Amino acid sequence: MERRKFLKGAALGAGATALATPALAQGAKQLTIVSTWPRDFPGLGISAQRLAARIAELSDGAFNVEYFAAGERVGAFDVFDEVASGNSQAYVAADYYWVGKHPGFAYFTSVPFGMTTVEWNAWIKYRGGQALWDELAGEFGLKTIPCGATGTQAGGWFNKEIESPDDFRGLKMRIPGLGGQVISKMGGSTVSLPGGQIYENLVSGAVDATEWVGPYNDYFMKFYEAAQYYYTGGMHEPGGGLGFGMNRAWYDGLSDWEKAVIEAACLEEHANSYEEAQALNGEYLQRLIDEQGVQVRNFNDDVWDGFGEASAEVFEEVRDHSALAKKIDDAFQANLREIGNMMAQFEITFVNQRNRVLGLG
Amino acid sequence: MERRKFLKGAALGAGATALATPALAQGAKQLTIVSTWPRDFPGLGISAQRLAARIAELSDGAFNVEYFAAGERVGAFDVFDEVASGNSQAYVAADYYWVGKHPGFAYFTSVPFGMTTVEWNAWIKYRGGQALWDELAGEFGLKTIPCGATGTQAGGWFNKEIESPDDFRGLKMRIPGLGGQVISKMGGSTVSLPGGQIYENLVSGAVDATEWVGPYNDYFMKFYEAAQYYYTGGMHEPGGGLGFGMNRAWYDGLSDWEKAVIEAACLEEHANSYEEAQALNGEYLQRLIDEQGVQVRNFNDDVWDGFGEASAEVFEEVRDHSALAKKIDDAFQANLREIGNMMAQFEITFVNQRNRVLGLG
Repeated sequence: MERRKFLKGAALGAGATALATPALAQGAKQLTIVSTWPRDFPGLGISAQRLAARIAELSDGAFNVEYFAAGERVGAFDVFDEVASGNSQAYVAADYYWVGKHPGFAYFTSVPFGMTTVEWNAWIKYRGGQALWDELAGEFGLKTIPCGATGTQAGGWFNKEIESPDDFRGLKMRIPGLGGQVISKMGGSTVSLPGGQIYENLVSGAVDATEWVGPYNDYFMKFYEAAQYYYTGGMHEPGGGLGFGMNRAWYDGLSDWEKAVIEAACLEEHANSYEEAQALNGEYLQRLIDEQGVQVRNFNDDVWDGFGEASAEVFEEVRDHSALAKKIDDAFQANLREIGNMMAQFEITFVNQRNRVLGLG
Repeated sequence: MERRKFLKGAALGAGATALATPALAQGAKQLTIVSTWPRDFPGLGISAQRLAARIAELSDGAFNVEYFAAGERVGAFDVFDEVASGNSQAYVAADYYWVGKHPGFAYFTSVPFGMTTVEWNAWIKYRGGQALWDELAGEFGLKTIPCGATGTQAGGWFNKEIESPDDFRGLKMRIPGLGGQVISKMGGSTVSLPGGQIYENLVSGAVDATEWVGPYNDYFMKFYEAAQYYYTGGMHEPGGGLGFGMNRAWYDGLSDWEKAVIEAACLEEHANSYEEAQALNGEYLQRLIDEQGVQVRNFNDDVWDGFGEASAEVFEEVRDHSALAKKIDDAFQANLREIGNMMAQFEITFVNQRNRVLGLG
């Protein structure tokens, strides 16, 4: 019922934005996109809306694109079933929301001690990652490609300082995906909540701590009202990407040109959202410090070592799930080491020397 | 004469590849692309050809795209004048080849101690970099956008080990842009040669050393025949991008949709080429070591400190060139520090901890 109500609302223009050229909409192919982000959410929400508009623009009216934010057509975590069933054509989401369906989905967003966005892109596009994603998503009637990225996410918001691995014992934290399982191994109690529900749970004390994205995205979430300690780059989501998940049968029926339009728009936005966050994080971190008195901290080596031990246990459990989970983990870990080693010798060697010589960091 | 000869050759299909749909070519807008890379050059050349094909594909026949590699229509370093004059519509090049026309062009490829590709993208797209590029290119009748990237380039190929800044004294090296000026400050003698002419100069001894790109691109250049020491990430080209330089008047006459097609294709390839290199560098570095006995080295801290001092002098000279050069340098250095500091606190903090815990690098 709720779905039909919102669909009707959308047709009246109340809940969604029709982006195609009206004159061409009659002969256009319908592309209904359902998203896990609230409407106009700074960062992720705006990125998904920009993507929908770009697909409409590049298709020059060939797609009638309608975009529904979280809750406008279906709830944030219902988009997977909505698209798998063919009721909508595509979702925008972080695929690690679906680890309950299959733990392999985590690798197609980001996993603890995993790849940065650039490393992940190299794996997905040029070292077999997309084929594994296709195999996994295909089991659920989906075809998913990258469409957004955040960069290395902040370690999270805490109401106390984290000085040893023991400080996670008994901590109630919102942290999804395999990162959440790492915190559980360290004695925490974790939940996965959609972005739109975190604030109320943090302020009410239902959770003690949360991670979200990084300074630009986090600024608007007001987590500092309940948690003043903000940790820099964490272990749980070093990079990777968000997914544009399409109904597989619908995707297979597209022409090569229609596929090219969607792919180009998704890959363009995948880069744009990552770079936009890197461009804006500095300004918003400063505002968090100056306006809200946020205390910025780094996790120390002991904490990182604790993360590492717990992560190793989590990956063992993932590999025990199924042959496909093991195949994905094998490929991911091997490519992480090969690509990561190379980045270390070139880009990271430069960055560490530059930062030393110029006094950055 | 040479230009007309190659143009005729192209019309006969001998020197270029016509990519548009033949049936639509009659009403299509001509887009002749001239490139600085030899045909089928692994890495950069293939990337530029892929971009030309993608523009044709996304435009669905609206552009009649013809691509000419270096020397097929004009010489590599003649593409700037070819496009500025309107004789061709676009070039693919590294804009730092044009530092003789204006030193500000260096910042729109890569400069010593500058930004990584992601940092540069953040500046270009979201912190005013593109507007400065437009101002500079506009002075020459051009509009240039990013269309390719290599990642942090290797320090170069040398026939001796580099153990102190003094080892650059008297060294003859192929290294373009401001990086070349840094080596000159350190007592070297530098030249800028197109990619297709480096090998013969190195083997003949006309130069003692050269930089090119990184393991994947460099593997095919066979520089190891004359220079066995290969240095990892260098100071001279930490990232940034290649440029798709369009005749400004032609660009201004495009429809919004035509501009969107070109922009989406260029930004997609800008990401793809960078990530392809990161995906393949590991394999090709191993082949250089195993098949050719290449000796891999890092520059030590003394050498990096020497690079830093020489770079500071070079930037002072650039700033003295003109008001626009000073404006570009001011913007670049400020954004490098803001974005670079933020990357250091998030992505680099993670990468260094990950590499420590997992033993990478």
